[in-house]
Amino acid sequence: MGAEGTFILGDWGTSALRLWLVDADGFVLDRLQTTDGAGTLQGDAAGAVFSRVTQPWRAKHSPRIAILCGMVGRRGGWVEAPYLTPDRWSELPQHVAHLRLPDMDVRVVPGLRTRAADDVMRGEETQILGLTRHQPDFDGAICLPGTHTKWCQLAGGQIASFRTEMTGELFALLSRSSVLRDAVGPGFDDAAFDIATAEALNDPRAMGRLFGIRADWLLRDTDPAAGLSRLSGLLIGAEVARAIPDINGQNVALIGTGELTDKYARVLRFAGYDVQIQSGEEMAIAGLTSIANQMFELTDG
Amino acid sequence: MGAEGTFILGDWGTSALRLWLVDADGFVLDRLQTTDGAGTLQGDAAGAVFSRVTQPWRAKHSPRIAILCGMVGRRGGWVEAPYLTPDRWSELPQHVAHLRLPDMDVRVVPGLRTRAADDVMRGEETQILGLTRHQPDFDGAICLPGTHTKWCQLAGGQIASFRTEMTGELFALLSRSSVLRDAVGPGFDDAAFDIATAEALNDPRAMGRLFGIRADWLLRDTDPAAGLSRLSGLLIGAEVARAIPDINGQNVALIGTGELTDKYARVLRFAGYDVQIQSGEEMAIAGLTSIANQMFELTDG
Repeated sequence: MGAEGTFILGDWGTSALRLWLVDADGFVLDRLQTTDGAGTLQGDAAGAVFSRVTQPWRAKHSPRIAILCGMVGRRGGWVEAPYLTPDRWSELPQHVAHLRLPDMDVRVVPGLRTRAADDVMRGEETQILGLTRHQPDFDGAICLPGTHTKWCQLAGGQIASFRTEMTGELFALLSRSSVLRDAVGPGFDDAAFDIATAEALNDPRAMGRLFGIRADWLLRDTDPAAGLSRLSGLLIGAEVARAIPDINGQNVALIGTGELTDKYARVLRFAGYDVQIQSGEEMAIAGLTSIANQMFELTDG
Repeated sequence: MGAEGTFILGDWGTSALRLWLVDADGFVLDRLQTTDGAGTLQGDAAGAVFSRVTQPWRAKHSPRIAILCGMVGRRGGWVEAPYLTPDRWSELPQHVAHLRLPDMDVRVVPGLRTRAADDVMRGEETQILGLTRHQPDFDGAICLPGTHTKWCQLAGGQIASFRTEMTGELFALLSRSSVLRDAVGPGFDDAAFDIATAEALNDPRAMGRLFGIRADWLLRDTDPAAGLSRLSGLLIGAEVARAIPDINGQNVALIGTGELTDKYARVLRFAGYDVQIQSGEEMAIAGLTSIANQMFELTDG
């Protein structure tokens, strides 16, 4: 980085706070993660959480600057960083919101909103930036699986469009709180998942097959792991089927980790796409580091 | 009816018990409705509820027979009436389950299951029977809106196929428990509903537009009534779009009452269909009366 000392980088999302202590070369010295989500923390309450969890780092390393992305920048959060439209994505460093603490400057990265005002993201813009720092020539679709999965089209180094799907939240609601809950249980049945995926990719009416999971269980006492895998396969398969018309070429980059990301990879490969998986944490660090570097260049210039 | 005295007819569904006291001519003498759903009442607990709520009728009219349809016939309910396949729909009266109480015979109507074992109904088979008693020549699609909406194809007086959609439950979960809940509120905005309907009828990717309801609210402070109407229009519109390939001809009969049924009628008419609406209560009474008459003929013969 273009300055001395240590820095705090962070991705403060709806339900989790992830922070990294990095040195001037961008090397990660320490990391922490808590469940203090920015989704419900109002103003000073967020500041109090930040002060508490970073206290050990501040006592020992005296970081001067923290750069945070994610829901922390929402209206009513700690400090609002108003949305930019995707055509101004490369200007993120010029539009960070500022907050001065007694011993540290906090900068919050803006989110993006579509020009049509029908979609928003906060945090993913920084991970996507990280991907382009790792792979400057990447062109194609980027998918960031989560409770609210983002699909983004990158063309010529610019975000051409993006879209949010609620599949993760739908899956949680249907598996825990709907009439399907009796018919689903822990475990992964790859055959049940793949069959459901194939159905959903081939039939735009897949959402009309959800109740069948209950009927299967009632009439044939289907294994709950197969029921859960079928539910997941139908929902993710239907989402990927909706995404396919937007995917130019055969390259899809997934940014994420864990089972959910693996499921998206499985469905996309089943549909014939070349898929690479990048860690969400690494992409966030790369994106925040890039923003930090540009900020210091701006300041130094 | 083919016997003397009074009878109890009933539709005992997942979340409600509806009973009618009828005379030998099928004339409704009295009716009652409670929230004692059969979805959770096990065995004797259902019997205790039935005895309690029918006590005034039994004291005054001494009905000899009760005929009930709906979830009361599920496995683990009061008395199981195993599912029939649709080709045996006309044999419902021969397959009612029996239970003898000290002062009354209780008969429970079977539900239907598809031959492929991927769908079931309990209660709707009786309402559909009621429709065919009112309109013996009806051919076409029948839609029974509800938490789990049933779509049924009637051809040559037989149930050719049926299918369940979970739209009602999805709407309840998304509007009350998802990230959309901030963006929706009471009221009906007919323009927002119709626009969403048109989008969903024309674009099989409508389910990918749900998150936009939240973005609209975040960025443009959209009226929550418009948000709720848009959610409803997208979900019901997408369901009707899935149903259209199965609808032969232009006749659709809706069995139901209230706002939900009116919304389905609005979407179907928007899509170009001739829609008639029949009361769910009247169709249930007609269907149960038909089953009663056939039972007495069987007994008398």
